[in-house]
Amino acid sequence: MISVILLGAGNVATHLYKAFSDSETVSVTQWYNRTRSSISSYANEVDITDSLEELKEADLYIMAVSDDCIAEFSSALPFTNRLVVHTSGSVAMHDIDKKNQIGVFYPLQTFTKDADIVFSEVPICVEVYEKENLKILRDLARAVGCKPHKITTEQRQTLHLAAVFVNNFTNQLYRFGHEICETKNIEFEILHPLIEETAKKIQQMSPFKAQTGPAKRNDKRTIKRQLKLIEKEEHEAIYKMLTASIKKTHNVSNYRPKKSKTN
Amino acid sequence: MISVILLGAGNVATHLYKAFSDSETVSVTQWYNRTRSSISSYANEVDITDSLEELKEADLYIMAVSDDCIAEFSSALPFTNRLVVHTSGSVAMHDIDKKNQIGVFYPLQTFTKDADIVFSEVPICVEVYEKENLKILRDLARAVGCKPHKITTEQRQTLHLAAVFVNNFTNQLYRFGHEICETKNIEFEILHPLIEETAKKIQQMSPFKAQTGPAKRNDKRTIKRQLKLIEKEEHEAIYKMLTASIKKTHNVSNYRPKKSKTN
Ligand SMILES: NC(=O)c1ccc[n+]([C@@H]2O[C@H](COP(=O)([O-])OP(=O)(O)OC[C@H]3O[C@@H](n4cnc5c(N)ncnc54)[C@H](OP(=O)(O)O)[C@@H]3O)[C@@H](O)[C@H]2O)c1
Ligand SMILES: NC(=O)c1ccc[n+]([C@@H]2O[C@H](COP(=O)([O-])OP(=O)(O)OC[C@H]3O[C@@H](n4cnc5c(N)ncnc54)[C@H](OP(=O)(O)O)[C@@H]3O)[C@@H](O)[C@H]2O)c1
Repeated sequence: MISVILLGAGNVATHLYKAFSDSETVSVTQWYNRTRSSISSYANEVDITDSLEELKEADLYIMAVSDDCIAEFSSALPFTNRLVVHTSGSVAMHDIDKKNQIGVFYPLQTFTKDADIVFSEVPICVEVYEKENLKILRDLARAVGCKPHKITTEQRQTLHLAAVFVNNFTNQLYRFGHEICETKNIEFEILHPLIEETAKKIQQMSPFKAQTGPAKRNDKRTIKRQLKLIEKEEHEAIYKMLTASIKKTHNVSNYRPKKSKTN
Repeated sequence: MISVILLGAGNVATHLYKAFSDSETVSVTQWYNRTRSSISSYANEVDITDSLEELKEADLYIMAVSDDCIAEFSSALPFTNRLVVHTSGSVAMHDIDKKNQIGVFYPLQTFTKDADIVFSEVPICVEVYEKENLKILRDLARAVGCKPHKITTEQRQTLHLAAVFVNNFTNQLYRFGHEICETKNIEFEILHPLIEETAKKIQQMSPFKAQTGPAKRNDKRTIKRQLKLIEKEEHEAIYKMLTASIKKTHNVSNYRPKKSKTN
């Protein structure tokens, strides 16, 4: 049995709590949040607290708190030499106060409180300073059905950067699609199958190979027509930049005739 | 039984051919392509030709050819007053030569020859000039299990524009993710669950509500760290533009202190 104390009650902590509760080999000893009200509804299933002084003993303390407060928060913990990890993709492991044993338990997935997640499909990136702590983090990942990946800080930060592109930025493109549909009273839902297929396709072939569309085809008439159709300046700027980028990736002429053959 | 002649042998025509062949209420009378070699392997299942003069009679001619050649190609057809449609998201229906009856049969999905598709989940946008032709296009969509949507030219072109954002541009972001992983010897596959979840999430909530990440949180330290980590100028430009865009969408302070409260 692995005993865990959860610190924080945001998107990640809430999903971790559910996954841990469902596991037979993990027990949540305590759940801390500085704002008690966000966890008070769990008071009859788990020991909750909003006081660091009340924190109990456990094999592992998981700080699922905002990136910016990880360092300070870890210093405020009133104990030493226990295993304390954060869940961030980008914060250095060494930002955690060295009075405790330090590590990272980064679930490479997007979490919002309301959206259900098949937790067993979440890759867990783990990192430790004291080698002997690797086992418990791997075991914890496996206890909730996930595959642990031992990676370096640099790899984790690189993965997080890539994740921002494929997740947050992609989601903003969905947002643009939604806005564009709304201007002409079209239901955004009609785009769902396309969005799903676009995501699925790159599990069969590389994004390079999967590309289609006017930019890849260098279909100038369509590009011109679409630029006319765009109503928001912001959409236009992104359209131009990503069209140019796709052309460059696929080596299609980019309106610089003299260079077009080598470019 | 609906008889169809397919014109073109690219991504769309190839998937249409498969879907029509699988349907019991559609027969492909003939398959034309200007380059015979791309369809010659089908010669024992369907009548193939590379000569417009040899085209037979059918209920419907589907031009699944490149956008830029639709107008010219439709003029070259050696017959009149038959139903001729294109499959483009952006070309005007009226670009088709009026010597025939005209229409559009636009499958709102991304097709590449090698990737399998569950055709029955493809929304089909239909448009006709002569009202009486609406039925056959709707019936054809239903014959391959798809939902037909009657839309206007403007709505179709708007949808196509939105599709470019959520499909081609999104795919280019996947490409960036792939490139970023490669720089640090990380397998791109580790991002697949995140990519799939990002696409699934917006079927449960709006992209606006689904957004997470450093830009949405206005997590300046992470943004700064990530900008340092980026190696390609192109990635940097997109990172900055989409970060600013997400901040704007979610009303987070955008480094203009005097305006920050209203902006
Ligand atoms: N969301 C994702 O998709 C995702 C995915 C992977 C990793 N992560 C990482 O997981 C961590 C948590 O993210 P999240 O999305 O769960 O965040 P979140 O939903 O915004 O929740 C933040 C939590 O941190 C607490 N907190 C904020 N400032 C604090 C402070 N100064 N002192 C103590 N507690 C503080 C908040 O407490 P209050 O309730 O009192 O405000 C809240 O419990 C971050 O490191 C993030 O990078 C997030
Ligand atoms: N791919 C998609 O995801 C998608 C989705 C929805 C709609 N569409 C639309 O469907 C249509 C076809 O797209 P696609 O992706 O299938 O294109 P594609 O794979 O590039 O195939 C183009 C086809 O057009 C033919 N063609 C090109 N120029 C021609 C000309 N001057 N005369 C006669 N035939 C010519 C080509 O013949 P050769 O084989 O001889 O070169 C080929 O058969 C376009 O209108 C496109 O906008 C595409």
